[in-house]
Amino acid sequence: MTETLPTGTQAAQSADTLELLGLVAQLELVAFARLAADAALAPTLAQRLQLTRFAATSVERRDRVLARVAELGGDPEAVLGSFAHVLDDFDARTAPSTWWERLLTAYVGYGVADDFCRHAAASLDEETRTLVLDVLGDVGHTELAVAELDVARADDEVLVSRLALWGRRLVGEALGVVQSLLATRPGLARLAAAASDGGQGGDGSARLFGELTAQHTRRMGRLGLTA
Amino acid sequence: MTETLPTGTQAAQSADTLELLGLVAQLELVAFARLAADAALAPTLAQRLQLTRFAATSVERRDRVLARVAELGGDPEAVLGSFAHVLDDFDARTAPSTWWERLLTAYVGYGVADDFCRHAAASLDEETRTLVLDVLGDVGHTELAVAELDVARADDEVLVSRLALWGRRLVGEALGVVQSLLATRPGLARLAAAASDGGQGGDGSARLFGELTAQHTRRMGRLGLTA
Repeated sequence: MTETLPTGTQAAQSADTLELLGLVAQLELVAFARLAADAALAPTLAQRLQLTRFAATSVERRDRVLARVAELGGDPEAVLGSFAHVLDDFDARTAPSTWWERLLTAYVGYGVADDFCRHAAASLDEETRTLVLDVLGDVGHTELAVAELDVARADDEVLVSRLALWGRRLVGEALGVVQSLLATRPGLARLAAAASDGGQGGDGSARLFGELTAQHTRRMGRLGLTA
Repeated sequence: MTETLPTGTQAAQSADTLELLGLVAQLELVAFARLAADAALAPTLAQRLQLTRFAATSVERRDRVLARVAELGGDPEAVLGSFAHVLDDFDARTAPSTWWERLLTAYVGYGVADDFCRHAAASLDEETRTLVLDVLGDVGHTELAVAELDVARADDEVLVSRLALWGRRLVGEALGVVQSLLATRPGLARLAAAASDGGQGGDGSARLFGELTAQHTRRMGRLGLTA
């Protein structure tokens, strides 16, 4: 047995890191199920093929995150499983009723969760941070949503204003998920607070929610929708 | 414009090749949807993760087959789409009612379709044949089914005899799919017949069904089930 045990601080830091990695892995696992469901409902074969590719990518990303969990001495399944129901409430409250709403739910709702993970990742060790940012950095799905909503916009102004409303509902629910994570997961709360403190001081939580809202507004803007 | 047009025979051969590639690609697309559904229902997280990996592999395989379609001058979506409903009847008639039945449906039912494609692939050009055999050659899913049914067998003899019965029903339905493909797809019928003629002469169709049945029996045997 080697005796290079981590100090108390390092051990706590490492537990917080595993917590964030568990959340990221769970988000990718949920993304797989959602993308597979979207693929089954896609209006065209080309979209279906594309969505199955995104689903495959989510599997690869999740496994990269779980490999890092194992490298850090964590139990991948336990770490992942501890977030098993993280989006259940969100999904139940935001069941989409059209293909466009589905796309927006994926892009906007899960986008907020990804942004939160990216924010909190600023507090991680460099290798883990790079991995998390890389895993969450893919824009393929964004491009699909943008292209599809461009078609919608050209076609139907009523649809567009309904989707803007849907986007506002989604972001409200998604920010609620983040709030509940901060309240129930001290490790995530510590990472998020440390990431915010890296800024100009003041209320870290207010800054975080301001940042998430600003990113949401940008995202809606890319779709040509009013946030 | 180059003037190296294929001769009539080569063009017909090429159309038959595209037909088989379309079927293989469609089987992988259907496999994705089924594996994603199986993952959602998997009793343990470890199985769920494994099934999402198989689903991701099916996407990669399908895309390799579609890339070959494009190389051969075919339209990947058209070739794939022409088999859009190939397993609809099979799926409707063999809706599994338990997790074990689901596993067996995947392993036994789709196994017959894969065997048919492998058989017909013997008539393809070498590069395409190697690709098809490679794409259909993975045994990961087999191992999951075998491991799971080992658990069942140790546990419950009634379940095992029910699954043997289920397997017989599946193979009947699956052979029906092959029969219907041979009757409605002249290209596949030609490839299958040519592959059988590579043998000792006689009735190619009878030989094909004999071969598919023998492979089914071996497959059930690996699971410790009576065919």
